[in-house]
Amino acid sequence: MDQERLNHLLHSVAEGETSIEEASNLIKKLPYEDIDFAHIDHHRSLRKGFPEVIFGLGKTAPQIIGIMEKMIPQESVILVTRVDAEKAEKIIPAFTDAVYDPEAKMILLGEQKPTPNAKGDILVISAGTSDIPVAKEAHLTAQAMGNKVEALYDVGVAGIHRLFAHQDLIQKAAILIVVAGMEGALPSVVAGMVCRPVIAVPTSIGYGTSLGGLTALFAMLNSCSSNVAVVNIDNGFGAGYMAATINRK
Amino acid sequence: MDQERLNHLLHSVAEGETSIEEASNLIKKLPYEDIDFAHIDHHRSLRKGFPEVIFGLGKTAPQIIGIMEKMIPQESVILVTRVDAEKAEKIIPAFTDAVYDPEAKMILLGEQKPTPNAKGDILVISAGTSDIPVAKEAHLTAQAMGNKVEALYDVGVAGIHRLFAHQDLIQKAAILIVVAGMEGALPSVVAGMVCRPVIAVPTSIGYGTSLGGLTALFAMLNSCSSNVAVVNIDNGFGAGYMAATINRK
Amino acid sequence: MDQERLNHLLHSVAEGETSIEEASNLIKKLPYEDIDFAHIDHHRSLRKGFPEVIFGLGKTAPQIIGIMEKMIPQESVILVTRVDAEKAEKIIPAFTDAVYDPEAKMILLGEQKPTPNAKGDILVISAGTSDIPVAKEAHLTAQAMGNKVEALYDVGVAGIHRLFAHQDLIQKAAILIVVAGMEGALPSVVAGMVCRPVIAVPTSIGYGTSLGGLTALFAMLNSCSSNVAVVNIDNGFGAGYMAATINRK
Amino acid sequence: MDQERLNHLLHSVAEGETSIEEASNLIKKLPYEDIDFAHIDHHRSLRKGFPEVIFGLGKTAPQIIGIMEKMIPQESVILVTRVDAEKAEKIIPAFTDAVYDPEAKMILLGEQKPTPNAKGDILVISAGTSDIPVAKEAHLTAQAMGNKVEALYDVGVAGIHRLFAHQDLIQKAAILIVVAGMEGALPSVVAGMVCRPVIAVPTSIGYGTSLGGLTALFAMLNSCSSNVAVVNIDNGFGAGYMAATINRK
Amino acid sequence: MDQERLNHLLHSVAEGETSIEEASNLIKKLPYEDIDFAHIDHHRSLRKGFPEVIFGLGKTAPQIIGIMEKMIPQESVILVTRVDAEKAEKIIPAFTDAVYDPEAKMILLGEQKPTPNAKGDILVISAGTSDIPVAKEAHLTAQAMGNKVEALYDVGVAGIHRLFAHQDLIQKAAILIVVAGMEGALPSVVAGMVCRPVIAVPTSIGYGTSLGGLTALFAMLNSCSSNVAVVNIDNGFGAGYMAATINRK
Amino acid sequence: MDQERLNHLLHSVAEGETSIEEASNLIKKLPYEDIDFAHIDHHRSLRKGFPEVIFGLGKTAPQIIGIMEKMIPQESVILVTRVDAEKAEKIIPAFTDAVYDPEAKMILLGEQKPTPNAKGDILVISAGTSDIPVAKEAHLTAQAMGNKVEALYDVGVAGIHRLFAHQDLIQKAAILIVVAGMEGALPSVVAGMVCRPVIAVPTSIGYGTSLGGLTALFAMLNSCSSNVAVVNIDNGFGAGYMAATINRK
Amino acid sequence: MDQERLNHLLHSVAEGETSIEEASNLIKKLPYEDIDFAHIDHHRSLRKGFPEVIFGLGKTAPQIIGIMEKMIPQESVILVTRVDAEKAEKIIPAFTDAVYDPEAKMILLGEQKPTPNAKGDILVISAGTSDIPVAKEAHLTAQAMGNKVEALYDVGVAGIHRLFAHQDLIQKAAILIVVAGMEGALPSVVAGMVCRPVIAVPTSIGYGTSLGGLTALFAMLNSCSSNVAVVNIDNGFGAGYMAATINRK
Amino acid sequence: MDQERLNHLLHSVAEGETSIEEASNLIKKLPYEDIDFAHIDHHRSLRKGFPEVIFGLGKTAPQIIGIMEKMIPQESVILVTRVDAEKAEKIIPAFTDAVYDPEAKMILLGEQKPTPNAKGDILVISAGTSDIPVAKEAHLTAQAMGNKVEALYDVGVAGIHRLFAHQDLIQKAAILIVVAGMEGALPSVVAGMVCRPVIAVPTSIGYGTSLGGLTALFAMLNSCSSNVAVVNIDNGFGAGYMAATINRK
Repeated sequence: MDQERLNHLLHSVAEGETSIEEASNLIKKLPYEDIDFAHIDHHRSLRKGFPEVIFGLGKTAPQIIGIMEKMIPQESVILVTRVDAEKAEKIIPAFTDAVYDPEAKMILLGEQKPTPNAKGDILVISAGTSDIPVAKEAHLTAQAMGNKVEALYDVGVAGIHRLFAHQDLIQKAAILIVVAGMEGALPSVVAGMVCRPVIAVPTSIGYGTSLGGLTALFAMLNSCSSNVAVVNIDNGFGAGYMAATINRK
Repeated sequence: MDQERLNHLLHSVAEGETSIEEASNLIKKLPYEDIDFAHIDHHRSLRKGFPEVIFGLGKTAPQIIGIMEKMIPQESVILVTRVDAEKAEKIIPAFTDAVYDPEAKMILLGEQKPTPNAKGDILVISAGTSDIPVAKEAHLTAQAMGNKVEALYDVGVAGIHRLFAHQDLIQKAAILIVVAGMEGALPSVVAGMVCRPVIAVPTSIGYGTSLGGLTALFAMLNSCSSNVAVVNIDNGFGAGYMAATINRK
Repeated sequence: MDQERLNHLLHSVAEGETSIEEASNLIKKLPYEDIDFAHIDHHRSLRKGFPEVIFGLGKTAPQIIGIMEKMIPQESVILVTRVDAEKAEKIIPAFTDAVYDPEAKMILLGEQKPTPNAKGDILVISAGTSDIPVAKEAHLTAQAMGNKVEALYDVGVAGIHRLFAHQDLIQKAAILIVVAGMEGALPSVVAGMVCRPVIAVPTSIGYGTSLGGLTALFAMLNSCSSNVAVVNIDNGFGAGYMAATINRK
Repeated sequence: MDQERLNHLLHSVAEGETSIEEASNLIKKLPYEDIDFAHIDHHRSLRKGFPEVIFGLGKTAPQIIGIMEKMIPQESVILVTRVDAEKAEKIIPAFTDAVYDPEAKMILLGEQKPTPNAKGDILVISAGTSDIPVAKEAHLTAQAMGNKVEALYDVGVAGIHRLFAHQDLIQKAAILIVVAGMEGALPSVVAGMVCRPVIAVPTSIGYGTSLGGLTALFAMLNSCSSNVAVVNIDNGFGAGYMAATINRK
Repeated sequence: MDQERLNHLLHSVAEGETSIEEASNLIKKLPYEDIDFAHIDHHRSLRKGFPEVIFGLGKTAPQIIGIMEKMIPQESVILVTRVDAEKAEKIIPAFTDAVYDPEAKMILLGEQKPTPNAKGDILVISAGTSDIPVAKEAHLTAQAMGNKVEALYDVGVAGIHRLFAHQDLIQKAAILIVVAGMEGALPSVVAGMVCRPVIAVPTSIGYGTSLGGLTALFAMLNSCSSNVAVVNIDNGFGAGYMAATINRK
Repeated sequence: MDQERLNHLLHSVAEGETSIEEASNLIKKLPYEDIDFAHIDHHRSLRKGFPEVIFGLGKTAPQIIGIMEKMIPQESVILVTRVDAEKAEKIIPAFTDAVYDPEAKMILLGEQKPTPNAKGDILVISAGTSDIPVAKEAHLTAQAMGNKVEALYDVGVAGIHRLFAHQDLIQKAAILIVVAGMEGALPSVVAGMVCRPVIAVPTSIGYGTSLGGLTALFAMLNSCSSNVAVVNIDNGFGAGYMAATINRK
Repeated sequence: MDQERLNHLLHSVAEGETSIEEASNLIKKLPYEDIDFAHIDHHRSLRKGFPEVIFGLGKTAPQIIGIMEKMIPQESVILVTRVDAEKAEKIIPAFTDAVYDPEAKMILLGEQKPTPNAKGDILVISAGTSDIPVAKEAHLTAQAMGNKVEALYDVGVAGIHRLFAHQDLIQKAAILIVVAGMEGALPSVVAGMVCRPVIAVPTSIGYGTSLGGLTALFAMLNSCSSNVAVVNIDNGFGAGYMAATINRK
Repeated sequence: MDQERLNHLLHSVAEGETSIEEASNLIKKLPYEDIDFAHIDHHRSLRKGFPEVIFGLGKTAPQIIGIMEKMIPQESVILVTRVDAEKAEKIIPAFTDAVYDPEAKMILLGEQKPTPNAKGDILVISAGTSDIPVAKEAHLTAQAMGNKVEALYDVGVAGIHRLFAHQDLIQKAAILIVVAGMEGALPSVVAGMVCRPVIAVPTSIGYGTSLGGLTALFAMLNSCSSNVAVVNIDNGFGAGYMAATINRK
């Protein structure tokens, strides 16, 4: 129930068109409907800028298809994350416009208008080739949310000169997403080069003391650069979403 | 905002005494006012059965005195936990009826009527002498909340026969709080002897692999008895509070 | 050996019908027979209210069938937990009345009379769709133990208003089981809304820093609400059992 | 060396005023001077919007005074973090305009012009009274960096209704910093209520399984809301800095 | 080279039967041969009491057969641990007398004479049915090393009375091996009942906070009974070997 | 209640001297009296061979004096562990025969007769000078329990030749206690040299990755020698007690 | 851009052949071109002494073949690590000279000239048979990098005399790589015997408290010998590479 | 015992000058005498190049003075590490030539001749000002062992250009020691710039997720550069010692 509908109802009470009992009953449900309404409103504003997302892991192909079908009437863009190739093959044929990205393991459906008055472009940087799937998830998520996204892959700190070859790209980004596994040092180095917000994404890439990404995570949280905040291990989607949230005017 | 007040408001809209804008504004805030109202009610019911609690750690004596003074008009019983003797000496003289228990490191003020229709008595069992402060915190909390509480201290699993000497006490308890550090085995053993709920409290007592109580905690969560649930390490207050909550009709 | 049998024996000694040696031998075994006897009695009282439970994980279908067959003459209700669909298919046909719940991965056999004088209904709340199997295990266990159980699924803290839409259900529950993975925040929020005991169940749902459920577990143990106690990760059965234990008069 | 100075040098080479050898020597040093130059430029842009910061922990009062004295000619605002009261007493008298905040344990010197074209206001929310020092550090940092900052303290998830009483404040913030220890649930709940970026700050407040803030940290990284990114435990300064970075046009 | 052979050599030098050069050459190798000799001697004394053991995990069937074939001429008893049924099927036919125990996952070859002057019998106690494979490994190892071993399985602490039913067996054991997973409480309880050495074996049985056996291990190391020492998680072989070492006069 | 007393009671029932009711009441208490009786007997056997021990940590000097005074009439030897020098100074004057060992931080009172028919001598080996306090605790405990104990200190694995210089001492020990911090390698090396039981004691000596002794503990549990069992970190007392238990015929 | 080219450019500016704008643009890019140039030079020196390495894990056979084909024109030696037998079978036929080592799981292509003026030979020592694959990886890497490498396998600390039998080999090595799992004690013992640098490699061999190699790693970092440095768990390649780096004049 | 002495002994046996028993006893001890001899030789070579080191932590001033006095006749250089200023003040006056470095917390006594034929200079790089004490410990140790050592402090990865300003120094070092706390990224970056061995030293500097240096340690072990090996947290001495060991011809 929005402002307009509420005013309309009160008007009709004032006009005697609606009885007090009737109005009271409608309004009595308002608290939760209103919260719901707030939620719906919130959702609507989200829908304007942001697609809906389904976490695909642990869901069957039919379950994902079912959820997607219920969403299509309401959403302009739908993302499904963490879908392996085998599962994707069963889902894609069910929707004319669905596209599967095998690297990011994401399904995308529909198209997003660019965010109006965005701060600028988002740049996704990743350290090693094995980090690319997570970087791609961030990339596609931010893009699907209406952002212009550029990518700079495979520029780990062991060959720091590779970063400098791309100074221009790095300096002109409004927001940077930096993806790294193993020692997780890249976000610190990049954040030291720019004065823009850096979203750091640790990946579970590595072995031994990489501890499934915890080492990269902890290193990033200890960054000596202060323009860094961190998301969960392998959470490319979250990084893309956060960057898109920041990029909105 | 209750039904009556809402009807009154709508009436006044119908009568033209309240403008639509004014009414709309009042109703817009309804969801959270209603929650607040529920909250106050909830608080009132709490006050009937349960004392207010101040976590004393990290608060200065004057701070605690200040909070207590603000509470006295509203509360019949006040508990302050984790107060060392030195700090207590500064607080106690400020209140005629305040009592300090040096073992439990708690200050109690006021008196609680017995919980009506309680399930029965609460029994606090502890494994070692070093666990007694935590056990005492549980004991005094549950007692302050209107329960009859009995205590059975220093009956660790290394002399399991000591438990059996108190079968009667153990069997007749409605709820049991079992406090243990080190290997944390006592709750499992006790829970295997009764069919009543057991609240297990791990303590930070021990050294080396006791890991500050984590070992006792994990052991209790792995109990092969199913009538056990666990609270945080050294959280005697929480165990007493939970037991009192269960004991209420 | 109960009082009556002991008196009878002593009588027959007094009457000279039983020799001192014979009596001495019988009484010498008394300690452990008595404990056993207590145990049997204890068991009997359990059987009245509570079903027997088989932990299915790591047992073969024939092993489970064997144990169930031995139990049937003695038990009115039998639960088997952690049985996957494939294994269940081999077990179910062996018993006329056995039912398999694929979500909870439980087999149930027999029927339980409602707990007399129960405190009230048990409400199972879960945060995400992935937490439902654990929630269902808690639900079916408490139900099999003679309780009326209600369920409220998929009301995670990221959309806190969804909880409020069910205030009535939440406020009228006598005991609440709250199941959550990832950040494990739901039990704190729910416990802050009620003055009833809350059994919190962390699940292993999540990735990266969820650490297989440890993060949810630790968060729940750190709850700023005091009417919360916690069971092991994914231990829906234990939560249901504990709630049923609490609910008994 | 900027563009202008380089052109000037080349001109004077073309004019024969500077020998090739001389020019070569000047330009040979360019790479690192240039990087340095980039750095200086970078610094200058930083200085425009951002103050310099001294991490006070482990530094003596004379050391801090020395560093501050060297900075004063170049910086318009100087922050010193993690300074206890005793140390501050020795530092403050050395500077006419230095101010010490005993809660945030920060020294501030100088004044900052408001960030032009900022996205909006920053709101700092904290869960418990013990979290306030960290919240204050975030608050003062963001403020010193030219932002309008509002504060909402002591609104933990165990009394979720307290949050709702401040819906207006929460909804109108451009960026939110949410500070919480213990179970670390507040950022998830707040992020679920808004569509703005949330910077989550775990604190080391708690005991037992709070694990010095790791539990809150992990919980925040597992947030089921996607508009959340996290900084290090107790890193109020970093959160304020990151929020200010985001808030800049 | 033993004392006798060395004396014989020196004699023959004294008698002029062996040249100094020849003797020198033999003795020159003595340091490492002697160490080797010590090793061989050590081995021989081991062989008198103890069988040779092959850790089967990660070795192929042909590799195990090869090692066994080389050992047969020198050893009276051969043990192979951690052999799954499939691998065992390929090994057993290669040796006339080899026996496979599918529970303990061990292959045994040959027969051991009883340890002379042993302290007494070894008793293996295990907590749950799932702990039996580890208990069996301990049992068969100690037995193969010439000890009389008794077993008491499935006597966990949740039904402590089951232990008491076997007081006689427990009291008469010279050395006790106690195997338990989950909360690992059984060794503490048993050690409190006897004044004999208890070797505690944690198992990886459990889920959630059992942490793959670490919880049981830490609990056992924190035992409040002092006559307990612990071996690695699931190390039934080590416990059997240690008990046999202790049992030797 | 022993056999004799039971026969006497039954006799007096047969003779009509004791009423059935009276006899019944006496026998009803038998289970736990019997366990108690067993316990007393058990205690008596302990007292014959083993001293009583007070864990001094966290107890005040008056508390320790009080406990010691109650024990003196019943015990021939009393040990107090973990007593710092300052506390010891207050305790020692209270007892004529009490002796304080400042390295082991133990108080000893009274004298123990040698264990009859002991397996042999106990040898305590320690790796570094910092491990000596723990080694001394083991030494004095085993000695106080009636054993002949020898010591070999400061023979760490970084100078493995130092061990070999003491081959004789090592080879003739019946039981070895090996104390080591840091990498905890010494027990493995020593156990590889002997065929006797080795009790390994990790110490909290070290820094960085010594993790307060956990690294040494884990290394010892992973020993590739099988004649090793381990006690808790810094638990010299437990090692001495376990060695003495093993050494008893 | 080297000195010569810069002088040439300035000359042509002086001569009016190059415009100031053109020259300015070329020089502006100098910083990063120079770094790049340094990098190329650096690479060239690398190529002279060191082979290129492909981390095979997680790459498909076609991917590896593709990378190898691109490298062949530029590299004299190519290493591929972590290639299982199945994958190797698909890669080997694609290259005439490629060789697969099934133990080290490495593919080698091409031949390396010996390092000129090397410090000496590298010795690889491993503790158990299960550690051999990691040892082999170190061995082949160092060898492929032009070093003379010797191997000493299966000389664990539980039979320390086996080490002494190879004193000569150990004493004459210029650099030692010591590979060990489980308790990780071998590097300490070896480093105590020599005055040469020891590279320690922990392996993930072990179970229970070996914690996937963390225990061996921590033990090695706590080595009481100071001539030890450590690489990641199972990182045989890194150890071989580091040893070769050290061995270069 | 060398060849000559053995021949001499056998001769005297052949001549009847030495009895067989006597000879036998001498030869029996041969293995360990020989090891001892090797050891003495080993020690001598150590003394030539390397100073003796006393770990000062936990030792009293008189204890340290005592050890130093015993060493002076035998050693040309003595190092004492981890000595705080207060303790140093008591030690320094006892020796004419002893020097105390308050940053490195080391005492140095005597002078070392330069390592002949050293590979080159050692460069110590540290990330933050707080890491300097550890860097200084490495610096002074390597210097005291006869090396030329240069230092480059405060060049953390957040301002990566600072490193490039010192390319010359970095490129010409024969061995690099890189000291860093917090995210521990510096060694990876430096090692990517050089083809020389890098010894990485994690420090315990940082808070929250720095986990007392474990994060830096794990990050360094996960370095994507292969010419890196790591020592224990804060182990500046070990790094200096290892670098000196490598630098020796």
